[in-house]
Amino acid sequence: MNANSPTPAPVTVLGLGAMGRALAAAFVAGGHPTTVWNRTPGRADDLVASGAVEAPELSAAIEASPLVVVCLFDKDSVREALAPAVSSLAGRTVAMLTTFTPTDAREISTWLAEHDADYLGGAIMAVPTMIGKPESQLFYSGPQHLFDTHRATLERLGTSKHVGPDVGTSALYETALLSGMYAMFAGYYHGAALIGTGGVSAKEFAAYFVPFVQAMATAADGAAEFIDKGDYTAELQSLEFNRSALHHIVHVSEDQGISPEVPALLRELMDRQIRAGHGADSATRMYESIARPQG
Amino acid sequence: MNANSPTPAPVTVLGLGAMGRALAAAFVAGGHPTTVWNRTPGRADDLVASGAVEAPELSAAIEASPLVVVCLFDKDSVREALAPAVSSLAGRTVAMLTTFTPTDAREISTWLAEHDADYLGGAIMAVPTMIGKPESQLFYSGPQHLFDTHRATLERLGTSKHVGPDVGTSALYETALLSGMYAMFAGYYHGAALIGTGGVSAKEFAAYFVPFVQAMATAADGAAEFIDKGDYTAELQSLEFNRSALHHIVHVSEDQGISPEVPALLRELMDRQIRAGHGADSATRMYESIARPQG
Ligand SMILES: NC(=O)c1ccc[n+]([C@@H]2O[C@H](COP(=O)([O-])OP(=O)(O)OC[C@H]3O[C@@H](n4cnc5c(N)ncnc54)[C@H](OP(=O)(O)O)[C@@H]3O)[C@@H](O)[C@H]2O)c1
Ligand SMILES: NC(=O)c1ccc[n+]([C@@H]2O[C@H](COP(=O)([O-])OP(=O)(O)OC[C@H]3O[C@@H](n4cnc5c(N)ncnc54)[C@H](OP(=O)(O)O)[C@@H]3O)[C@@H](O)[C@H]2O)c1
Repeated sequence: MNANSPTPAPVTVLGLGAMGRALAAAFVAGGHPTTVWNRTPGRADDLVASGAVEAPELSAAIEASPLVVVCLFDKDSVREALAPAVSSLAGRTVAMLTTFTPTDAREISTWLAEHDADYLGGAIMAVPTMIGKPESQLFYSGPQHLFDTHRATLERLGTSKHVGPDVGTSALYETALLSGMYAMFAGYYHGAALIGTGGVSAKEFAAYFVPFVQAMATAADGAAEFIDKGDYTAELQSLEFNRSALHHIVHVSEDQGISPEVPALLRELMDRQIRAGHGADSATRMYESIARPQG
Repeated sequence: MNANSPTPAPVTVLGLGAMGRALAAAFVAGGHPTTVWNRTPGRADDLVASGAVEAPELSAAIEASPLVVVCLFDKDSVREALAPAVSSLAGRTVAMLTTFTPTDAREISTWLAEHDADYLGGAIMAVPTMIGKPESQLFYSGPQHLFDTHRATLERLGTSKHVGPDVGTSALYETALLSGMYAMFAGYYHGAALIGTGGVSAKEFAAYFVPFVQAMATAADGAAEFIDKGDYTAELQSLEFNRSALHHIVHVSEDQGISPEVPALLRELMDRQIRAGHGADSATRMYESIARPQG
């Protein structure tokens, strides 16, 4: 350890599911005095062997560290698990790495504030095997000073970024990025299904799809300008033009006997804007069909 | 011109809409003797000024070149336009750059074969301003020898690739890649709408979305292996696991007051496989809901 690395701070991990165990292991590997607790005993053996301390009582687990990382199943399990020992949390910081909605984050942070505990919302963009590596991305939101205080510890888990003062924002980042990822994959599956009808393998298609979608993704930045201005006036690539391209994709999909549902939904999102009289605007206006479903 | 560049071959372009004009301009710029024709006169003035020859009669336009590039509106306009002069096409090659379905390509190639014309299916992945630049990607399919014979001419239009012997395959490549692009953008719009509810701009979101989706896209290659084997047995990242992630996205979307339609459709495509008893398989099995809508 050199002069620039402070002594690793103590940390507690509540919940030793697949993810909680990976989090605790990364803290142990980073030299943090690590206390762990799980509702069902017997999940900590490997961690204890590598240096973690298993607390038999929840309150003792909480009292061992100023930072308590919570990785349980969902909001209800967090309420249920923490209720018996919530007063132990006073003066400590909870870093919530349970998957929450922004509403969940506000509810639980308000409850914990009533018990004098600080709250940092968190979201993990990684699977357990990635934890501790730079490709594991974590988002945090809530008071900046809480993030700054615990940053060196939290960074053991992966690339860690504070994204705003609202405790729910980290959950929005996670959900927003995953939406994009799932939709992109649905596009790949649709494309692979289409091209498969011509006897081309999904592997051959991937060789074209990957660089194409990577290149096209950069256009998100230009689309963002329309969205942020709320002005979709455009000369090229109108909704009408793109709608006819999607209509063609739906038609080819039907012709080839595969499900047209993915492109048909996208066509419908465009049609709503066209029906509202915006056919000459940029195709990016399709965003409005999602963002303002009531029009 | 050096010893390796053959004399540019004569080429005819039928159809001088936005795209046809761009194609003809690229041939003229490449030094090809270029003959053009359009149903409505008066669209060729700029091209003629830069060296193209406008043929007043369709048959004269066709007879000027061994390669006839057709860029009209759709299949019906191709039938209607070519019918009066179809016999002139005997012994020539038609490169079809009108947007066709694979079925259209088979129908028109069969019709032209009856008149002793050769047929090369084509598809343009570019807007007119990109034509002639390497970022303009064109797919061709049909007899390999036709592509080889006319390759030097066709490459004037952009990066040109022969993708198989079936005249419809080029249309499948185009449609498959565009499906992926549109779905990826729908994912971006959904993510931007979600994150916008937290006051984060679409521009800030794009800075995370672009590298994330670019990195995730590389997983298409791994997904292809499941698809090509038709075996989705997996230990990690099951359909059940991903279904719950999508359910969470739908829930957050509803909570934040935006349309959940995009993630809800993806959840439904997963649910169909889960209902069929495949919940423990890889999430890639969602592909089957698209490829085999009848199960
Ligand atoms: N795994 C991933 O790839 C991944 C990725 C990103 C985010 N996450 C999030 O991380 C969190 C944990 O995921 P995981 O994969 O570790 O889940 P998991 O393996 O199913 O573990 C769930 C954990 O929650 C505990 N738990 C559930 N209900 C409880 C209750 N009422 N009281 C006390 N403890 C309770 C379980 O304790 P018992 O052992 O006593 O049942 C277990 O420790 C979830 O919110 C998940 O969305 C996971
Ligand atoms: N523009 C793009 O970005 C783009 C990109 C990829 C592919 N494409 C494809 O390229 C093709 C042409 O597109 P474009 O943008 O050039 O369209 P456009 O500007 O609308 O031009 C349509 C052309 O088709 C002709 N036409 C239509 N019906 C006809 C008929 N019955 N008989 C004879 N000629 C007829 C028109 O002639 P008149 O002038 O006499 O009406 C005109 O030359 C389409 O299949 C399109 O999908 C375009």
